[in-house]
Order: sequence, then structure tokens, then C-alpha cells
Amino acid sequence: VPAPDPSALARDTLAGDRRALARLMTVVENRSEAARPALAALFPHTGRAHIIGVTGAPGAGKSSLINELAKAYRRRGLRVGILAVDPTSPFSGGAILGDRVRMQELAGDAGVFIRSMASRGSVGGIAETTGDLVKLLDAAGFERVFVETVGAGQAEVDIARTAHTTVVLEVPGMGDDIQVIKAGIVEIADIFVVNKADREGADAVAGLLESMLDLNTGEARRVLQESCLADMVCPPDSYGPDGWRPPVCQTVTSTAQGVGAVVEALEMHWEYLDRSGRRVARERLRAATEVEGILRQELVRRVVARAALADMSALVDRVARRQMDPYSAAEALLARLS
Amino acid sequence: VPAPDPSALARDTLAGDRRALARLMTVVENRSEAARPALAALFPHTGRAHIIGVTGAPGAGKSSLINELAKAYRRRGLRVGILAVDPTSPFSGGAILGDRVRMQELAGDAGVFIRSMASRGSVGGIAETTGDLVKLLDAAGFERVFVETVGAGQAEVDIARTAHTTVVLEVPGMGDDIQVIKAGIVEIADIFVVNKADREGADAVAGLLESMLDLNTGEARRVLQESCLADMVCPPDSYGPDGWRPPVCQTVTSTAQGVGAVVEALEMHWEYLDRSGRRVARERLRAATEVEGILRQELVRRVVARAALADMSALVDRVARRQMDPYSAAEALLARLS
Repeated sequence: VPAPDPSALARDTLAGDRRALARLMTVVENRSEAARPALAALFPHTGRAHIIGVTGAPGAGKSSLINELAKAYRRRGLRVGILAVDPTSPFSGGAILGDRVRMQELAGDAGVFIRSMASRGSVGGIAETTGDLVKLLDAAGFERVFVETVGAGQAEVDIARTAHTTVVLEVPGMGDDIQVIKAGIVEIADIFVVNKADREGADAVAGLLESMLDLNTGEARRVLQESCLADMVCPPDSYGPDGWRPPVCQTVTSTAQGVGAVVEALEMHWEYLDRSGRRVARERLRAATEVEGILRQELVRRVVARAALADMSALVDRVARRQMDPYSAAEALLARLS
Repeated sequence: VPAPDPSALARDTLAGDRRALARLMTVVENRSEAARPALAALFPHTGRAHIIGVTGAPGAGKSSLINELAKAYRRRGLRVGILAVDPTSPFSGGAILGDRVRMQELAGDAGVFIRSMASRGSVGGIAETTGDLVKLLDAAGFERVFVETVGAGQAEVDIARTAHTTVVLEVPGMGDDIQVIKAGIVEIADIFVVNKADREGADAVAGLLESMLDLNTGEARRVLQESCLADMVCPPDSYGPDGWRPPVCQTVTSTAQGVGAVVEALEMHWEYLDRSGRRVARERLRAATEVEGILRQELVRRVVARAALADMSALVDRVARRQMDPYSAAEALLARLS
């Protein structure tokens, strides 16, 4: 098999060639330098897709919900892209077996493109690649692009910075567990979905979420400010549901109960972003997040290129023996870069 | 209140002053430059603590298990530090209510120090601060230091790179859910604990884990290699249970059932690391991870210092309008740094 020419792959992707799209995704995932001209060429063709982040705890039913939403959108004649960013499998890159089985239903549909992403086990790298894969799907003409991420840690904040609409899944508490709604979650959710709503406690969770939304002052959002470049160049209200009351939907994905209401909520939010002018702020935040991700990656690449790994290895030895503290070792490496 | 002098805080921390330790932790968490001399001064006093990472899905019972383990160690006369790195609350930094309640039992014990860390919402930053807080507890004479992280995404890999011993919690599958053991988890676990072992299916999970351990070839570990500087300068067998068969324990934390066996497993692993010489490799990996974290942080700090944020803002505007692709924008920013 000859090495694929990314420029040709980009051209064929625009022309609707699924195989070219899949191959280009692999080039992007491999972080090949060759992907860059292709991404640059496709970039002006992006900006049409509604990018929908779906987050929630493992087992909350994210994949099943996306599966049902995708089927609903297909009935409306829209093309659907799905990126399953599954950082719960940082090594193998494999999706959870059950999810894969459920996703099979859509696999034969030419109007659907599903990609299960391996996490590369590298801090910061996942978000960057996700953004590029979203762009590929967008340029290829998929009008709704779902990005599934596990609801934990940085991934949630990343998705809020990457998507136009962030859907947060909750499930009723199980057994004797105390129902937990995470602090700060109302700051990033545009739509709440209480899944497995046939279980006891669904109304209680929905009620708890509504109370949290009543109390939400937007204060916590400012915490994000100090942490990253993107937040420094975007106003604090760039994300979060400012001026939009996030609806709290209830679904049972096994019977598709309540899925229609989620589709309506998604469409209403998309219209709201346009009507209110807030889509511009979101696009800016998305752009800033992406530039920052590339910047971080590139800075580390420079260290690898300029500092000999042997040097780093020697410094690490000294730190491990407690002859040098780690800050001094990092400074010594940085000194070699300037 | 006058601003604390970090050098004095470091001295008082070594002398066993809890209040000084707490204040120094705040200085570290705030990422103040003032923390560095204090950390450098304390660094030679580190290296005595057994650092134990505890990871698992939200709701698996990590806090409850740590609570019981801490009580068991206290009965043995050992001092225990606990860092609850809770990235599931990226905004408020608050721990889950139920966990806080359970942890109260230990709060009055002078031989225990508990710190709940706020995630700062910043990629890469959590791991760095965790390492520094661990060092503070180590220098302050806590002989066993538990680091609790949610078992998702990067956090699991980070903990495996930071701890001497990594404990992975699993729980029996709930209801109709397919029992999922994450791919790659056997690569990082030194000890497995099936918690909530009074639930149906505990033996099945334990059996599944044993089968996975039987099949483990160590192949997946190599995937980590390509992703980060630390892995580039440390051999692939620096972490993971090479030469050590991870025991699979079963616990019911509400009755402390099985907790004693986990303590025994922890002590055996600590002895194993010394006896086999593998503790040296772990210390090296820990050092490399720390140096890399500081390096990443410092590189971004340079960008903020040298590139005007106004410049970045203007570039981000162009990307958001699709007049410039994000790679070109990142390159333009990098060009200003050299």
C-alpha cells in the first residue's frame, strides 16, 4: 500500500470519499507533519457543523444516547459524525465492548461516520487531535458532529471549550449511594439529560439540577480564567449557558423515550447561539483553545528537538537521587533552549 | 494577617507544625514563585514516604477505602497523609459531600493530614502540584501518603507515574450493565481491590481480573513510550507490575472487611520494590514526570510573558473568522518567542 498523499486525501474528503476521510483521520491521529497542509486546505470549508459535546460518568449511557440522537437526525435527513473520545482506555484505544455493539446499528449508513479515538496517553494531546478530527468531519459535510467524552477531570472543561453545545448526562443514584451532582457542572452544561429515567430517583435528580440552575450565579466560571491562555484572551462568559436556561430532559435510551425532546433542545440551542450572537464568542473560544493546544504541543516538541534526551536523562538521575530539585532540573533544560 | 514567609514555613513544617504545612500547601497550590525556594529546601528531606495512588471510577469507594487504610496504618503507629485530587470538581475544588463526611473521622487525629485539592482546570497543572504537595507531606514526616484520583483518562496514567504503588478499585457491575474492565488497567495496577464485595458479581470481577493478569504480556505498556518526555528517558518497565503479580483483594469498606489484606499487600509491594531494586526505577520515573510537568508549565509561562496577549487575541480572531488556520496562528506566536 503506497503512503497516502494527504493533499489528495483532503480533495477526496471534500468530494465525499469516506475512505479518504478515514485515512486522513489516521494521518491526523498519528500526528504526522504531513497532515498540516491538508488541514490548512480543509480549514476554510469548516464552520458549518453543529458540534455537540456529550459528557457524563462512565456507564451513564453517553454512547446509547448519541446512538438514538444520531438516528433521529438521520430521519431528518441530516448527516451525522460521531467521535468517541474514550480516555477511559488510555492504552489500547479500544472502546467499551457494549458501546461498540450498540453503535453497530449505524455503521452501515453512509450518512453517518463514526470514529473511536484512542487516547494517546499524553496530557494535552487528546484535545488537539479531537479538534482536528471535528474539522475533518465538518469539512466533509457532516452537519451534526457529536463528541463523546467521559465526564471526569479536564475532559469536561475541554469539551465545553470545543463544542457549540454541551450536553451533560446524569443518572439516578444507585442503591445506597448519595446522589452526586458535581460542583461546577452547571457552569458548562447547555442541556442536561437525566438518562435511565425509568429508574427510581430520576425526578429527584432532575429537581436537584433545576435547583442548582436556580442558584447558579456564574461566579464559579471565573475560576477558569487564571488557568489557561484561551481563557485569558476570551471573556469569562464565552462559554456556559449565559442567557440560556439549560433544559433538563429525561431519557430512557433503550426505548428512545425522551430522545425527541433532546433533539428539540439541541436545535433550540443552536438557533439561540445564532440569534443571540453568542455563537461568535463560542467560535472565538474554540479557536483560542485550539491555538493554545497546538502551541503547548509545539513547545514540548522543541524541547525534544533541541535538548538531547541524554541530557534530560542525566538530570533526571540527579533528581531521583535527590542531588538536584526538579525545578532546578527543568531550569537547566530550559536554559539550553534559549 | 501578614503574608507568610515560605522559608519560615518550610522550617516550621520540618519541625512538625501542621499549620505551617497547611499554609505552605496553599502557597504551592497558588503556584506562587515564592514556593520554589521552600520546595528546594525541603527536597533533600523527601524520599522516606511510601506514596500510594488510589484510582477507580467515581463512586467506586476510593475515599472510603483510603479512610479505612488510614485507620489501619494509624493503629500501626504510622503517620498518614491524604491528598484527595478530585478532578471531578474542576470548578469549585470541592470534594463530594459524602466523602467529606466519611473523612471527618480522621480529621481530629494529629497523625493524619488530609488535603482536598482543587483542580485548577488546567491541562498538566494538576499533576505538577500533586507532586509538590506529596513532597511536603513526605518532608513533614508522613510515612504513608495516599493520593486519590478519579479513574479516568490521563489521571490514571499520571498516578502510575507518581506513586510507588498504584491501587486500582473495581466494583461489581450494576444491574444490567456489562462488567467493564478497562483495557490497559493491568499495565498500571500494582494491587487490585474489588470494593463493595458484598454485592453480587464480586467474585466474577475478581476472576476477570485474574484472567487479565494471566494474559498480560506487557505489550500495551509500550504505547506509553511515544507520548511523553518522561517515557522517553525511562525504560518501558519503569512502571507496571513487572515481576510482581498484583494481588486481587476484596473489600467491604462499610464493615472494614478485607482492609487488613490490602494493608498487607501494600507493605509487601513496598518491600518488593526495595528487594528487587525496582524502587530506583520508580524514583527515576517519578523524577522525570515531575521535571516534564514543570517544563511544560514553564514553557507556557514564557509564551504569556513574551507574546502580548493582545497579539494572541488578534490571531484568535482571525482563526475564529477562518481567515487563518490554527497551526499558522500557533506558528506566528512561536515565531515571536525565538
